Amino acid sequence: MHKAGIHVIIGTPTYAVPTWLVKKYPDVLAITPRGPNQYGPRQNMDITNTHFRQHAEIVIRNLLAHVKNHPAIIGYQVDNETKAYNTSGPNVQRLFVQHMQAKYKTLAAINKAFGLDYWSNRINNWADFPSVNGSINASLIAEFAKFSRKLVTDYLAWQAAIVREYKQPGQFITQNFDLDWRGYSYGIQPEVDHFAAAKSLDIAGIDIYHPTQDQLTGIEISLGGDIARSMKGGQNYLVIETEAQGFPQWVPYPGQLRLQAFSHLASGARMVEYWHWHSIHNSAETYWKGLLSHDFEPNPTYEEAKAIGSDFNRLSPQLVNITKKNDVAILFSNEALTAFNAFSFGWGARDTYNDMLRPLYDALYRHNVGVDFIDPTCINIEQYKLIVVPALYAAPDSLLTRLNNFVKNGGHIVYTLKSGFSDENVKVRTTVQPGIINQACGITYSQFTLPENVTLKGALAEGEKDNAVQKWMELITPTTAKVLAYYNHPVWGKYAAITQNQYGKGMATYIGCVTSTTITEKVLKNALEAAGLWGADQALQFPIVTKYGQNQQGKTIRYYFNYSAVPQPFTYSHKDGNELLTGTAVAANGQYTLAPWGVMIMEENGQ
Amino acid sequence: MHKAGIHVIIGTPTYAVPTWLVKKYPDVLAITPRGPNQYGPRQNMDITNTHFRQHAEIVIRNLLAHVKNHPAIIGYQVDNETKAYNTSGPNVQRLFVQHMQAKYKTLAAINKAFGLDYWSNRINNWADFPSVNGSINASLIAEFAKFSRKLVTDYLAWQAAIVREYKQPGQFITQNFDLDWRGYSYGIQPEVDHFAAAKSLDIAGIDIYHPTQDQLTGIEISLGGDIARSMKGGQNYLVIETEAQGFPQWVPYPGQLRLQAFSHLASGARMVEYWHWHSIHNSAETYWKGLLSHDFEPNPTYEEAKAIGSDFNRLSPQLVNITKKNDVAILFSNEALTAFNAFSFGWGARDTYNDMLRPLYDALYRHNVGVDFIDPTCINIEQYKLIVVPALYAAPDSLLTRLNNFVKNGGHIVYTLKSGFSDENVKVRTTVQPGIINQACGITYSQFTLPENVTLKGALAEGEKDNAVQKWMELITPTTAKVLAYYNHPVWGKYAAITQNQYGKGMATYIGCVTSTTITEKVLKNALEAAGLWGADQALQFPIVTKYGQNQQGKTIRYYFNYSAVPQPFTYSHKDGNELLTGTAVAANGQYTLAPWGVMIMEENGQ
Amino acid sequence: MHKAGIHVIIGTPTYAVPTWLVKKYPDVLAITPRGPNQYGPRQNMDITNTHFRQHAEIVIRNLLAHVKNHPAIIGYQVDNETKAYNTSGPNVQRLFVQHMQAKYKTLAAINKAFGLDYWSNRINNWADFPSVNGSINASLIAEFAKFSRKLVTDYLAWQAAIVREYKQPGQFITQNFDLDWRGYSYGIQPEVDHFAAAKSLDIAGIDIYHPTQDQLTGIEISLGGDIARSMKGGQNYLVIETEAQGFPQWVPYPGQLRLQAFSHLASGARMVEYWHWHSIHNSAETYWKGLLSHDFEPNPTYEEAKAIGSDFNRLSPQLVNITKKNDVAILFSNEALTAFNAFSFGWGARDTYNDMLRPLYDALYRHNVGVDFIDPTCINIEQYKLIVVPALYAAPDSLLTRLNNFVKNGGHIVYTLKSGFSDENVKVRTTVQPGIINQACGITYSQFTLPENVTLKGALAEGEKDNAVQKWMELITPTTAKVLAYYNHPVWGKYAAITQNQYGKGMATYIGCVTSTTITEKVLKNALEAAGLWGADQALQFPIVTKYGQNQQGKTIRYYFNYSAVPQPFTYSHKDGNELLTGTAVAANGQYTLAPWGVMIMEENGQ
Repeated sequence: MHKAGIHVIIGTPTYAVPTWLVKKYPDVLAITPRGPNQYGPRQNMDITNTHFRQHAEIVIRNLLAHVKNHPAIIGYQVDNETKAYNTSGPNVQRLFVQHMQAKYKTLAAINKAFGLDYWSNRINNWADFPSVNGSINASLIAEFAKFSRKLVTDYLAWQAAIVREYKQPGQFITQNFDLDWRGYSYGIQPEVDHFAAAKSLDIAGIDIYHPTQDQLTGIEISLGGDIARSMKGGQNYLVIETEAQGFPQWVPYPGQLRLQAFSHLASGARMVEYWHWHSIHNSAETYWKGLLSHDFEPNPTYEEAKAIGSDFNRLSPQLVNITKKNDVAILFSNEALTAFNAFSFGWGARDTYNDMLRPLYDALYRHNVGVDFIDPTCINIEQYKLIVVPALYAAPDSLLTRLNNFVKNGGHIVYTLKSGFSDENVKVRTTVQPGIINQACGITYSQFTLPENVTLKGALAEGEKDNAVQKWMELITPTTAKVLAYYNHPVWGKYAAITQNQYGKGMATYIGCVTSTTITEKVLKNALEAAGLWGADQALQFPIVTKYGQNQQGKTIRYYFNYSAVPQPFTYSHKDGNELLTGTAVAANGQYTLAPWGVMIMEENGQ
Repeated sequence: MHKAGIHVIIGTPTYAVPTWLVKKYPDVLAITPRGPNQYGPRQNMDITNTHFRQHAEIVIRNLLAHVKNHPAIIGYQVDNETKAYNTSGPNVQRLFVQHMQAKYKTLAAINKAFGLDYWSNRINNWADFPSVNGSINASLIAEFAKFSRKLVTDYLAWQAAIVREYKQPGQFITQNFDLDWRGYSYGIQPEVDHFAAAKSLDIAGIDIYHPTQDQLTGIEISLGGDIARSMKGGQNYLVIETEAQGFPQWVPYPGQLRLQAFSHLASGARMVEYWHWHSIHNSAETYWKGLLSHDFEPNPTYEEAKAIGSDFNRLSPQLVNITKKNDVAILFSNEALTAFNAFSFGWGARDTYNDMLRPLYDALYRHNVGVDFIDPTCINIEQYKLIVVPALYAAPDSLLTRLNNFVKNGGHIVYTLKSGFSDENVKVRTTVQPGIINQACGITYSQFTLPENVTLKGALAEGEKDNAVQKWMELITPTTAKVLAYYNHPVWGKYAAITQNQYGKGMATYIGCVTSTTITEKVLKNALEAAGLWGADQALQFPIVTKYGQNQQGKTIRYYFNYSAVPQPFTYSHKDGNELLTGTAVAANGQYTLAPWGVMIMEENGQ
Repeated sequence: MHKAGIHVIIGTPTYAVPTWLVKKYPDVLAITPRGPNQYGPRQNMDITNTHFRQHAEIVIRNLLAHVKNHPAIIGYQVDNETKAYNTSGPNVQRLFVQHMQAKYKTLAAINKAFGLDYWSNRINNWADFPSVNGSINASLIAEFAKFSRKLVTDYLAWQAAIVREYKQPGQFITQNFDLDWRGYSYGIQPEVDHFAAAKSLDIAGIDIYHPTQDQLTGIEISLGGDIARSMKGGQNYLVIETEAQGFPQWVPYPGQLRLQAFSHLASGARMVEYWHWHSIHNSAETYWKGLLSHDFEPNPTYEEAKAIGSDFNRLSPQLVNITKKNDVAILFSNEALTAFNAFSFGWGARDTYNDMLRPLYDALYRHNVGVDFIDPTCINIEQYKLIVVPALYAAPDSLLTRLNNFVKNGGHIVYTLKSGFSDENVKVRTTVQPGIINQACGITYSQFTLPENVTLKGALAEGEKDNAVQKWMELITPTTAKVLAYYNHPVWGKYAAITQNQYGKGMATYIGCVTSTTITEKVLKNALEAAGLWGADQALQFPIVTKYGQNQQGKTIRYYFNYSAVPQPFTYSHKDGNELLTGTAVAANGQYTLAPWGVMIMEENGQ
């Protein structure tokens, strides 16, 4: 690599355990709710196991001592896509009980906070504390999930501390975080607290996989980038893995690999790395194809990657490490995620928190609105003009009060269903719903049901055909809010579905049901306009996507992407400048056309 | 409760085991075919376990000694929705082998009766008796299911005997039986022999949950009521649980809760109790909502319940404890149920015995025909004019002969497919089919197949569009029967599908396939007319439902329900009287209109 | 049986283990990837277990010593539908490691050949060799599958050797092989190497079950027959089991049982035996009905069987033991099957090797082309004019080179997708694809994708509506091949889908995607014509099916079958002769009509 002029990030080799280690210490394999793991796959170990940790440390120290001074090495990746992999055997149980003792002090506090009297789950003695594996108590399950996420945070911090002993000036530590997986990168990772885990790293890393061909939209690239950038407070990040040819169904159309690469940069990436160089000839990822096919010969995807490399080489000074300042944030919560998923929309429902988050994110993406991600630990939410809050199902009073104050002081919030419903222990609030935020929202409800042949009526839904209410509907009565939409139904028609409330100097919008794509976009447009955030970029319609940032020279870089197979004319509505790929001048309000799956990169004149 | 004037039924707290008991005696958790149970849910214990029984007895005795003399206590519920929960570990196996020795005396008898020579399943030595968990022999599986139902009967009797030592004059013992569960109460409970188990109780209790909103029909209320009333030979029963708000999809429309409450009374209930008072803030039933939502505030459902309470308070003297005398009975059989389900309609088919029973019950309900349930232990079947017999797949010769005699002596029977097919040991009869009852039915068949593009032809199907034959078809040749319908199919068209036979003074109808709703209703109408049971109430069409009984003053009470969202005019075709809810007079042959989801209750003048 | 004049084949009774044996030696039950087996079903034992083998040997020896000289006994069936039943406990693992040591000598060789470095699967010490149960390495999984098939071969050889000690002159040894099961006999058996296992037998046996009624096509009868006949190099075979009434959905229409029986003979069967005589009254196969129903009375199926028996009795001299000489063979491979199925068409895809083989076989069947089956051990492929090769996914270089030479020397081959892709260790070739056979095929590809809205264009697809490309598409570039069809797609339209290449004196056709039934038939017609194999029989269209062979008198017997419910007129285009069933003369080019589900059997005059 060094000879070829390629820099190297060394990964600690702890993501899959060798045969001999398992033979010698069978307890290295995790016990999960499904029983003891078998040897074979990766991710089968217990990351808390002493023997595993001992040998992980030995191999890390030996490897790093060997490589640390090599000039090719620019950094280290600790482990890979780390999670706790459902480890929940006796040793983990012991740690969990210790965690509970430290956090809650008394069993009385736990029994009350978690409602353990129900179905005789009360614990009278620490020694009786049962494994959570069989629990039917979502509070306990959510606490164990939080504890499992902490195991990941601690494990990565432990690895990072070891690596830090070896790393040389100029070298960095990163991790390859991944997203909720739905055959592709879909949403917030349920098993890792990314923001907490990233604290021990120098720079955030992420892997992003997404549909392509006719399904390529760029949304996952944008989503993964926004999450990764937000992990370390707006820092640029590394795309540690993304697809080259990928799955058979992902072989890119001509131009798509290039479109994707620049889209990563537009979100703030400072590196795009493909998984992987060449396709593997055996085992589980034989059909997860690299830049090269198994034959090691050039192919169209590889040729396009070469062209991207050449562009990157030439334009890096202007394109890399752009800074982004967004007025809109999505407030997500790992705690709300676990809690929401525990109940979803009732027995048998499979809808998850990310299914609530994604439509909001996607609508903002299609509106060309830049977004940061914040979580409940965020200390400066006031920097944003609009906060979008999907399904904040579990949250402490303090957070909800903070959000009320944010609105009171002039902020805008869009909430969706179930927000405020239960506290940080996943105990449903005993107050009027939506809990606490009803103040800012100016509404109440105490009943909810599942929609059957329900649509929306009212100004917002006027003449709209894509207007079905799905999955869930809260039967809302406004107190001070105005109603953007009512339910269209013979019985439930008197209840509000979507409301908007002026509260103090700000405004809170509440969506009490699962709305159609069109309605979701309309609500967000409405909120963006109210917050004064509807500008020229919003006039462009997806499949034209535009993003911008300041480059290292202080100039504004504006990307224009065509996420479609047909040419897209558009009006460039910003300052005069240059299109960097072609090196031609562009003029404010000039008419340009994006090629199919095409890219233009405008560098504005001036600073 | 006492201060609020509310009576209390004390439940023995044995339905969910505490953490400490499981920690101390891990064998309290049942071993099932899926392996050892984990701590967490209810219903995870082995009801035969000595340690469980010891501690259950201690807690029952202590609790009852403490409360028995309190004036609020009117009775006791032993356990809840009790079953054997698939307990089948070594100790249960030991009990089962003892049961088999006592019942069959020799292994030779078992090997022969159960056909154990097949696939080397023969048992030569009692010590070799294998666990039924892995069995592929439906005879053995059915016998174990019967044994498991007996475990429930014995366990409840054991609890009832303990409670009986404490209960005071005027106090009663009940249980909360539940039905086959299909997301709601659906049919005969496969895991409990309700009639046997109810013997140790003073009064029957049941829980009934059902779809609502646009799916509310009242059928499950009627079905559960008829089963509960029949458990103790026509006694009034307690509705120990029914839904308030229930699942999110069950939040009642205005009027529905009231309609449901009076429907329970109309079937003979003497109490309607909601699960539960307020919604629970943690754990598995967080979204199984009570009368109150989590906020403890009044809501529309609660307000309607208050109005119902007020009506009940006012009208109880006239409405409670009505007696019902029905001419029609459904003969069900736990043994036939288990046996039918073991084979259903072949590999991969999921249809169950209750799927055969329900269409018949539902048709009688829509015909406004009152129904009792009887099982093979019934000693006075002669009290009925018409017996409807779904899928009596496993039955001893004696029962089938008794049914032949019932017809010979003037009774009417409607049988469906597979009746008489196998004996009490689930061995297929070696005689002509349908076994033994072919005499009364006047038919034979030796082949059957699955219908594909088959309908019915013949008088009964004339001009009928809802006429598909589904799931199963027996290729019937009449001997003396007349054919109500043939199959409409190029090859099978010569075989009969539905037949009717005069036998002695009575008549037997046989339905050899799964028929459409319309055809099922026509067959039953035909049988009801033949039995002289088609009267004025039958002229009313669902969604108008009418039920009646004699109240404690000897007066006839007639309920009229509107199970729809539109007003329903109807002719009141009985004696002059008074509508009790409004206190207004009603006249014979008067025209009245039921409000949407409305109720009228006529008390006839005179006795 | 002897008294009734019925010959008997004695089966060794080792297919289901008795209760006492399992009680005495619990290790008789296999440990599989799903855990230890339970007592109850058949096929639950470990065929390598010492205790099982000891007792199997005892019972076989005792039984055979007792019966061997009885005049009714014509032969022996060793075990039944034998497989290894996923046995993979510690003892099997020990044997597998020994097998690996013997085959590969060093772990270095295994690590390299199987790519075990991936995900730390490398084995450094024989003692560390992990169970394959948890493996994610398809090479290792495929090797274990091959090893499991060898366990079956060895086990049957062991039984056959014991039986051979007892069998008398004139008695034979057979087995009842079965096919891949998909609710009916579907394709190549994945768990048994039929050709290897048959070596220890005297005569091949097979069971064939198939859809009937409107779904009866005769394909499975023909397929199973061709496989069985090919097992012992063209010998006649026994149909050890086929359906009488069978599943409820299989009750034959009048005439179908007879059509099926003669179809077996037309493929070379020398016996047709029904499973089973009478229906069983208990246990797992209660609804797998025999010739007689449970009532032991005659029924239409039984009556038809009697008529078949009478015909067989009368016509056996002319019909039994016909010899067949085919110009077309299907090259199948157990190794390719396992390897293909390990990957199918990607994560979540369920398509199997047999789904690739069947459309080709079915098309040849509908073209009335006689087919042999050959596997990679075949030493005289040159006897064929056309070899059809479905998805030869894993194959050694030597086999592919042999196939290239076959074409070069004048042979014709039709390949489908993924052929040549990986070597015998399921390692993807590092050369250009399709590996090695690209020489004969005159094509290359290095990318493939999943089709979405793709059809075919080009001469072969001209005007064709049934033309969808499904499941998989290789992006082929011809080198010397001509293109029969291109993809019809905006991006992939420049790539070839189906190609044909003159190579030496022969021709290789390559199908790079899953084609519609019509296109598959067209490709095969094209290849048959090119090979000079399109004759008069091919002019007849399914549902008319014709097969032929030479009988023991050296005369040509020609069967004509009508696989439909409507009469089928056809021209008899062969020599003058006699129709054997009716005993009437038939003339060359005469017009005859097959009755619905009818049969005609022409014996040509002369030799």
